[in-house]
Amino acid sequence: MILVKIGGGETINLSAIVADLAELREAVLIVHGANATRDHLASKLNMPKTVITSASGHSSVYSDGNAIDLLMMAYAGLRNKRIVELCQQHGINAVGLTGLDGRVVQGRRNTGIRARENGRTKVVRDLSGKPVSANVELLRLLMERGYTPVLTVPIVDETGVAINSENDDIVRVIANECRVDTVLQLIEAPGFLKDAADPESVIRVMKPCDIQEWEARAEGRMKRKLMALRLLLTEGSARVIIADGRTEHPVRDALGGAGTVVREG
Amino acid sequence: MILVKIGGGETINLSAIVADLAELREAVLIVHGANATRDHLASKLNMPKTVITSASGHSSVYSDGNAIDLLMMAYAGLRNKRIVELCQQHGINAVGLTGLDGRVVQGRRNTGIRARENGRTKVVRDLSGKPVSANVELLRLLMERGYTPVLTVPIVDETGVAINSENDDIVRVIANECRVDTVLQLIEAPGFLKDAADPESVIRVMKPCDIQEWEARAEGRMKRKLMALRLLLTEGSARVIIADGRTEHPVRDALGGAGTVVREG
Repeated sequence: MILVKIGGGETINLSAIVADLAELREAVLIVHGANATRDHLASKLNMPKTVITSASGHSSVYSDGNAIDLLMMAYAGLRNKRIVELCQQHGINAVGLTGLDGRVVQGRRNTGIRARENGRTKVVRDLSGKPVSANVELLRLLMERGYTPVLTVPIVDETGVAINSENDDIVRVIANECRVDTVLQLIEAPGFLKDAADPESVIRVMKPCDIQEWEARAEGRMKRKLMALRLLLTEGSARVIIADGRTEHPVRDALGGAGTVVREG
Repeated sequence: MILVKIGGGETINLSAIVADLAELREAVLIVHGANATRDHLASKLNMPKTVITSASGHSSVYSDGNAIDLLMMAYAGLRNKRIVELCQQHGINAVGLTGLDGRVVQGRRNTGIRARENGRTKVVRDLSGKPVSANVELLRLLMERGYTPVLTVPIVDETGVAINSENDDIVRVIANECRVDTVLQLIEAPGFLKDAADPESVIRVMKPCDIQEWEARAEGRMKRKLMALRLLLTEGSARVIIADGRTEHPVRDALGGAGTVVREG
């Protein structure tokens, strides 16, 4: 089984990705972002996002009720349904789901983030949290009947409340609970770059220990992404391919050797 | 099996409806609108809706690509996921779906509407159509496992394109294909009113032939709604209850005799 994580960037070539997926023989599960859609909508609605930085240096979006509304419109609404529509046009019988639907991705709401504001530390609690488990039964039920789940945020907390979560963490939980063989991360770069400014600097093969080294040096959102990737590799047995989601054949190229492969040994 | 159609009006008491549904022993299937959410969002995004009137006097929203984006954000995104969230908080394991998801509601795109504009008739083709069939297998699969489907627009056409459709027509197709016993329509009025301006004028019991009489006299959207209701009654065997969705116990009251009951004989 392949889990394809489609980044939420503006230049991701959605229709090329879906066209490639339609050629695959393997079962596919899609998890997608919608950053660009969310930011675009937020600016049109004049709802700027608030980013808070935790005392430990991780930055994240502060999610209040309005931010969850925005997630529902941009991720669960516009992006999810446009991807499902593309799938249907290519003969993939997709079913779009958020973590709320059938409690497919259950999480635990953060008790509070120690955030820095004007040099002072205070505890802030928002509508965000971490995924803890997946409703594997529902995912399998759908996949056994030929449906392709297309997942996105929000997820559901212990009390049934919609919360925001990092897609990378959702990918980790789903990949490990569903015993995914390959996680394909399609991003707006040709792979994991040694030098972020140089697209020619793709690292071909990485090991979990390499990820740990990069993680130690990274900051903010990238640090968080690398941590999720490290945990994905150490908790489970999937190989991870990080590849370009902007090309004419993102999936075909990635499975054919393009991008960065991360695996044990 | 009960099909509950929740109107998309501003004053619909969603949490009271869901709380009532959580008390029911019967299997439930929800179809919902989101008119108020859509109109609110459209005004904030400065995307006014275009209403066209067909030569035969039916009025409907003209659906271009932007209108479908709006549907996806308001119906499939915000309203659907907030209803699913409420359900989860009340112990109902809801799964939100549009007609696109798993091709749950398949339709046929309108070939063109003969519309009147400035006294002249022209043919206009938009992204709208009529539901033709339901994926009963998927709905049953979910319901047998204890999931409650929460359906809304858009639906999917023959070629996989997302199209707008009237919720009343979707209710008709689902009710007849899933052999629903009771269709409960929760609206922003105490029932079907003899005089639209007088909330005391609720008609207690109606027959399909009464509907036909009202239909002949009605215009625009109401005419369309009445036609859908008539077809629902003549094609299938469900009884229909039209009741107030704004009270403290909309479902309990409706099943206890409030509102208007429409049935054969």
